[in-house]
Amino acid sequence: MSQTPDSAVRTYIEQHSSAFLEDLAEWLRIPSVSAQPDHAPDVRRSADWLAAELRETGFPTAEVWETAGAPAVYAEWPSDDPEAPTVLVYGHHDVQPAAREDGWDSEPFEPVVRDNRLYARGAADDKGQVFFHTLGVRAHLAATGRTTPAVSLKLLIEGEEESGSPHFRALVEEHAGRLAADAVIVSDTGMWSEDTPTVCTGMRGLAECEIHFFGPDQDIHSGSFGGAVPNPATAAARLVAALHDEHARVAVPGFYDGVVELTDRERELFAELPFDEREWLRTAKSYAARGEAGHTTLERIWARPTAEVNGIGGGYQGPGSKTIIPSSAMVKLSFRMVAGQDPAHIEKVVRDWVATQVPAGIRHEITFGAATRPCLTPLDHPALQSVVRAMGRAFGKPVRFTREGGSGPAADLQEVLDAPVLFLGISVPSDGWHAPNEKVELDLLLKGVETTAYLWGDLARTWRHAP
Amino acid sequence: MSQTPDSAVRTYIEQHSSAFLEDLAEWLRIPSVSAQPDHAPDVRRSADWLAAELRETGFPTAEVWETAGAPAVYAEWPSDDPEAPTVLVYGHHDVQPAAREDGWDSEPFEPVVRDNRLYARGAADDKGQVFFHTLGVRAHLAATGRTTPAVSLKLLIEGEEESGSPHFRALVEEHAGRLAADAVIVSDTGMWSEDTPTVCTGMRGLAECEIHFFGPDQDIHSGSFGGAVPNPATAAARLVAALHDEHARVAVPGFYDGVVELTDRERELFAELPFDEREWLRTAKSYAARGEAGHTTLERIWARPTAEVNGIGGGYQGPGSKTIIPSSAMVKLSFRMVAGQDPAHIEKVVRDWVATQVPAGIRHEITFGAATRPCLTPLDHPALQSVVRAMGRAFGKPVRFTREGGSGPAADLQEVLDAPVLFLGISVPSDGWHAPNEKVELDLLLKGVETTAYLWGDLARTWRHAP
Ligand SMILES: [Zn+2]
Ligand SMILES: [Zn+2]
Repeated sequence: MSQTPDSAVRTYIEQHSSAFLEDLAEWLRIPSVSAQPDHAPDVRRSADWLAAELRETGFPTAEVWETAGAPAVYAEWPSDDPEAPTVLVYGHHDVQPAAREDGWDSEPFEPVVRDNRLYARGAADDKGQVFFHTLGVRAHLAATGRTTPAVSLKLLIEGEEESGSPHFRALVEEHAGRLAADAVIVSDTGMWSEDTPTVCTGMRGLAECEIHFFGPDQDIHSGSFGGAVPNPATAAARLVAALHDEHARVAVPGFYDGVVELTDRERELFAELPFDEREWLRTAKSYAARGEAGHTTLERIWARPTAEVNGIGGGYQGPGSKTIIPSSAMVKLSFRMVAGQDPAHIEKVVRDWVATQVPAGIRHEITFGAATRPCLTPLDHPALQSVVRAMGRAFGKPVRFTREGGSGPAADLQEVLDAPVLFLGISVPSDGWHAPNEKVELDLLLKGVETTAYLWGDLARTWRHAP
Repeated sequence: MSQTPDSAVRTYIEQHSSAFLEDLAEWLRIPSVSAQPDHAPDVRRSADWLAAELRETGFPTAEVWETAGAPAVYAEWPSDDPEAPTVLVYGHHDVQPAAREDGWDSEPFEPVVRDNRLYARGAADDKGQVFFHTLGVRAHLAATGRTTPAVSLKLLIEGEEESGSPHFRALVEEHAGRLAADAVIVSDTGMWSEDTPTVCTGMRGLAECEIHFFGPDQDIHSGSFGGAVPNPATAAARLVAALHDEHARVAVPGFYDGVVELTDRERELFAELPFDEREWLRTAKSYAARGEAGHTTLERIWARPTAEVNGIGGGYQGPGSKTIIPSSAMVKLSFRMVAGQDPAHIEKVVRDWVATQVPAGIRHEITFGAATRPCLTPLDHPALQSVVRAMGRAFGKPVRFTREGGSGPAADLQEVLDAPVLFLGISVPSDGWHAPNEKVELDLLLKGVETTAYLWGDLARTWRHAP
C-alpha cells in the first residue's frame, strides 16, 4: 500500500479536527440518559441530532428508528462497488446517569477540554467512539478520491444500551433485511492503553436483577422488637454475603454451567500484554486485586463470569441514628457471563437460589432486566486482520489482542444477522466509563478517525462480498 | 384507704380532660426532632413550651436547662411535709423523625383523634407520658385538699433521648445536688396491654455505631473491573451477615461477657403473662418470631442482648440499574445490652471484631454514638410496691411485671443520684413508637393521670424519707 493515502488522510483529519470536536461537543451537551425516564426527551433529541449530522456527513440515508423504548439511529451509504462487502457499525447514543455532585470536576453535560482530553459524560462511552466514524468516512473518501465508501457502510446507533438494550433485539429482528451485513463492527469498546493498541475479541454478557426483601409492614422499634423478628436488611446482607464462596467463586448452583474455559493459547496472549497490576489498580482506583482463585486479574475481568452488588439499601441512611428494624431492603445484582453461558439459564438458577436463601418471615420479589449475551470473535477471521492492519497504520505500532469485561448487545447482531462481530475502540481504561469525570483522549479519538479512514479500503481489497 | 379520694380524683380528671388534651395537642404540634439539626429550634421551642406549662400547672420552679446539645426542662414542687420522700420523674420532650410519606395516614405533627386514640409523633413516646403528670399532680392536690404534693416532686424532661442522650449524663452530674431524690420514676415505657396493666422492672441498654466501607476512590464500571477488585457493598453485607451465628446469637467475640442471666423466678413471671405469639406478631407487624436459640420471644426482647442493622446503603439505589462497583457503603448497627453488660466493653469488642472482618483493599471507619446503660429494678423494692398499688387502683386489676426491650438513660440517674429507678408507663405495644401512625390510647392516658394522682400519697404514707 502506498504512503500517499496515509498522509492525505492525516492532512484531511488535521484540517477538519476542530470542527469535528465542536460538533461532538454539541452532541455531548444533550443528556441522553436512558435509565432516567425524565431524560426521555433528551434521548430523542440526541437521536434526531445524530441523524441530521449523518446526513450532513454525506450518508444518503439517515433515519430515526422507533422502538418500544428509546429511538435508535440508522444510516446507510452504499458502495458503488457491487462486490464490496457490507459492514454494519454498531454503537449507542445514550449515556449513563451523571450529576456534578457525584464527584465531577466540571458539569458532566458541559464538555470541556483539559490537557488534550475532552471531559463529558459519553465522551468515550459511546458518543466519541460513534462520532469518529463521521470524520473517518469523509477522510477515506477525500484521500481515495472516491464518492462512495469502498465498502457499503451501515450504522446502527441505539438509544438504550446503558439500560440493558431491552428493545434492541426486537429492533434488529424487525429490520433484519436492511441491516444485513457481512460483518458487524462494534464501536463501543476500548484498547489496552495509549501505547499499546489492541483489538478486542470478545465481550462478557450481562444479566441484572433487583431483589426486594419485605419484613415488618412498617419500620418497627428495634428496642421493642429487636432480636425476636427477622430483619429484611439482614436478609439482604446475608444474600449478598452468600453470593461468593471462600474462593471468590459465584456460589449460585449451576452458575458456571456451559462456561467456555480459556485455551492455553488465549492465556498466553493475555500474559503477553504489558500488565502492571499496580498501574491497573490505579486505573481501577482500587486498593487490592482480588477475585476468583486460580485466575489472573486479566482472566478475571475478561474471561470469567462474575457476580457483583451494584447497590444495596434498607432502613435509615440519613444523619444520626434511628433505632428501627426496617420494613424492607433492596439489592441490585449484576452477573457478567462469558461465552457458553445462557442468560435464561442464569436467571433461572439465580431465582432458584435466591428463593432458598430468604429466611422465614421475609417475603421477597425479584425482577430481572433484559440480558445481554456474551460474544467472542474467532482470532483467525479475515476481517479481524483488516482491523488489525488499519489500526497498525494509524498507530504505527503492532496491534495486540484483548477482550472486554463489559457487555454490549453485539451477540444479538451476531445471532440475528448471522454475521461475525468485530470490535474497534480507542478508549483507554482511564477514561472513566460510568464514573465521574469520563473523558476521551483527543489524540486517540483522532487515531480512531484515522483507523476507519484506512479500514474500509483494506476490507474491500482483502475480503470480497460473497455474491 | 378510703374510696372518697378515688372518686374525687376521677371527677377532677373528667372535668379537666378536654383542656388537658388540647394542651397536649399544642405541644405535639412542635416537631421537636432531636436527630435532625434543622429541627433544633423546634426542640428549644418544645422546652420553652413545657416549662411555661409546668409553671401554669403550679410548679413553683420550672426552668430550661442548657446542655451542650438540646435543652432539658427541670421543675420542682417541694412538699410541705419535711419527712416526705423526694421523687424525680424522668421523661423526654424530643421525638423521633417523622414524615407523612413514611406511611402516616395524617400529618405526624398535626394531632388528630380517631377512635378514641390520639395520633401524632410523640403521642406515646414520650410527650403523652410526660404530660399525664401535669393533670395527675393537680388531681392529687384537688382530691386530697393539699396545697403541695405529698412527696417532693421533681421533673427532669430531657431533649436528646431520641438521639441517644449524648449530654444527659453531664447534665445530671452538673445538677446532681438539685436532682437528689429518694427514687427516680421513669415515665417513658409501656405496659403489657390495655387489659393487663404491668410495671416494667428493667430496660435494655443501647450502643450504636455507624461503619463506612471505602473501596475504589469513585464508582467504577462493574464490567471493566468486576470480579477483580473488592466491592465495599459486599464487605458491608458480609459484616452484617457475620453479625449472628447459626443460633442467632451475636457472633462478636466477648459480646456476652458479664450478661446477667435470667433467674428461674423471672422466667416464670415472664411465662405467666398472657402472651399470644400470633397477636404479638401482629403488633410487631412481622411474619415470623425468630431469634436467639434457647429463649422465648419475651426473653429475647426483654432480657437478652441483641444486634440489629438499622440501616444499610451503598451504590446505586435509584430507578433502573447502574453497572458499578460502588465507591463506598455504610451500615448502621445497634446493640441492646442487658444488666451486666458495659457499653465501653461492647464498643471495644465490636471495634476489634469489625477490624478483623474488613477485607484487604477496603478501608473502614467506625464511629460510636453515646451509649445508654441497661438497668434493672429489684422486685422487692418498697417504692415499686407503691407503683403497683397506685396502678392497681387506677386500673382496678392486678398488676404484673414486665421488662422493656427499649433503652433510656435511666441507668445514668441510678448511678449518679444513687437512687433506685422505677418505671411507670401506660403505652401499649400497638402505639407504634418510632413508626408511622404513632398514637396513644386516650383511656390509658387518663389512667396514667389517675395512677400518678394516687401514687404520691401512697409513696408518702408507706415510704418515709430517711432524714
Ligand atoms: Zn457503551
Ligand atoms: Zn421515649
